[in-house]
Amino acid sequence: MAHIAVPPGLPGIRALLALRPEVGAPMAALTNVLLHEANSLSPGEREIIGAYVSSLNACGFCRDSHTAIAACHLGDDGAVVRAVLTDPETAPVSPKLKALLAIAARVQQSGRSVRDEDIARARQEGATDIELHDTVLIAAVFCMFNRYVDGLAAGTPADPASARERARLVAEHGYSVSLPQPATT
Amino acid sequence: MAHIAVPPGLPGIRALLALRPEVGAPMAALTNVLLHEANSLSPGEREIIGAYVSSLNACGFCRDSHTAIAACHLGDDGAVVRAVLTDPETAPVSPKLKALLAIAARVQQSGRSVRDEDIARARQEGATDIELHDTVLIAAVFCMFNRYVDGLAAGTPADPASARERARLVAEHGYSVSLPQPATT
Repeated sequence: MAHIAVPPGLPGIRALLALRPEVGAPMAALTNVLLHEANSLSPGEREIIGAYVSSLNACGFCRDSHTAIAACHLGDDGAVVRAVLTDPETAPVSPKLKALLAIAARVQQSGRSVRDEDIARARQEGATDIELHDTVLIAAVFCMFNRYVDGLAAGTPADPASARERARLVAEHGYSVSLPQPATT
Repeated sequence: MAHIAVPPGLPGIRALLALRPEVGAPMAALTNVLLHEANSLSPGEREIIGAYVSSLNACGFCRDSHTAIAACHLGDDGAVVRAVLTDPETAPVSPKLKALLAIAARVQQSGRSVRDEDIARARQEGATDIELHDTVLIAAVFCMFNRYVDGLAAGTPADPASARERARLVAEHGYSVSLPQPATT
């Protein structure tokens, strides 16, 4: 049960955003820029970073929902993301994404733990300044989302069928068109 | 020096947002809702939460800039915030704010570390559901900002005079009107 009273019938962060819709619009817009809009990192790669950081933060709701969205983008059943969550270095992803995931893992610990050599490795694998920027910010944003959901004990999972449908909708249309709606409307 | 090339002449997060203005608008809007718009927690109390979490994350840029903004709201020289950063429990702030700061410190560690008794203490001191929500989210948002700034090694401090002037402008007008401008315009 969540630490505060939230609208019934909505899983995870959607219940919180229905309680405080003023924060929903800017959060959705920020998420959409970082995860969905055109970028030299694919949406699948960016969702993998989010699922990975959520897993490091032990936030099951965010890990599972972004694993599902990544799987939609990648067109698999989640196997690639699960391999990343187990060990990014042996997962079937590009050397560049492995280097960016190593930076994301540093950011999850603390911004101050990112080392010059982490940045150098990613550059050597072809990462651009904007890709480095976006990786750090995506990892930081998930450190926010994970704390928001778990700090209010609002990690109620969605039922599997509606979680799959929502992942498909977000993968197709992005975050700005999927603002939370109270269960009663 | 920052890990990536950023526009010259802008301190801290402002340099990052000038590099990637698409994220600046939703971040400013989110920050404005949480820290500046009307709320049963005063702007000074909310800035104290942000400065405190930034201090726990050892993010000097965010700690100092939000200490300065809090001081503008409180009409002091920063003494109250400095007392909070030293020890919230003995600082000259309300029992409710002390309880909310204890929750913020938990969120800084991990969302999962917030305990039922932390929430119960805050409720006993009069905290509402929205105040609990906003405290958790403000703490989570600063965990993002701190990682964003330090993860890119972009914590260049502002010079003292312009930092004071900016703090005054933000305290008066909020975050949405103070979007970063590249140094060249």
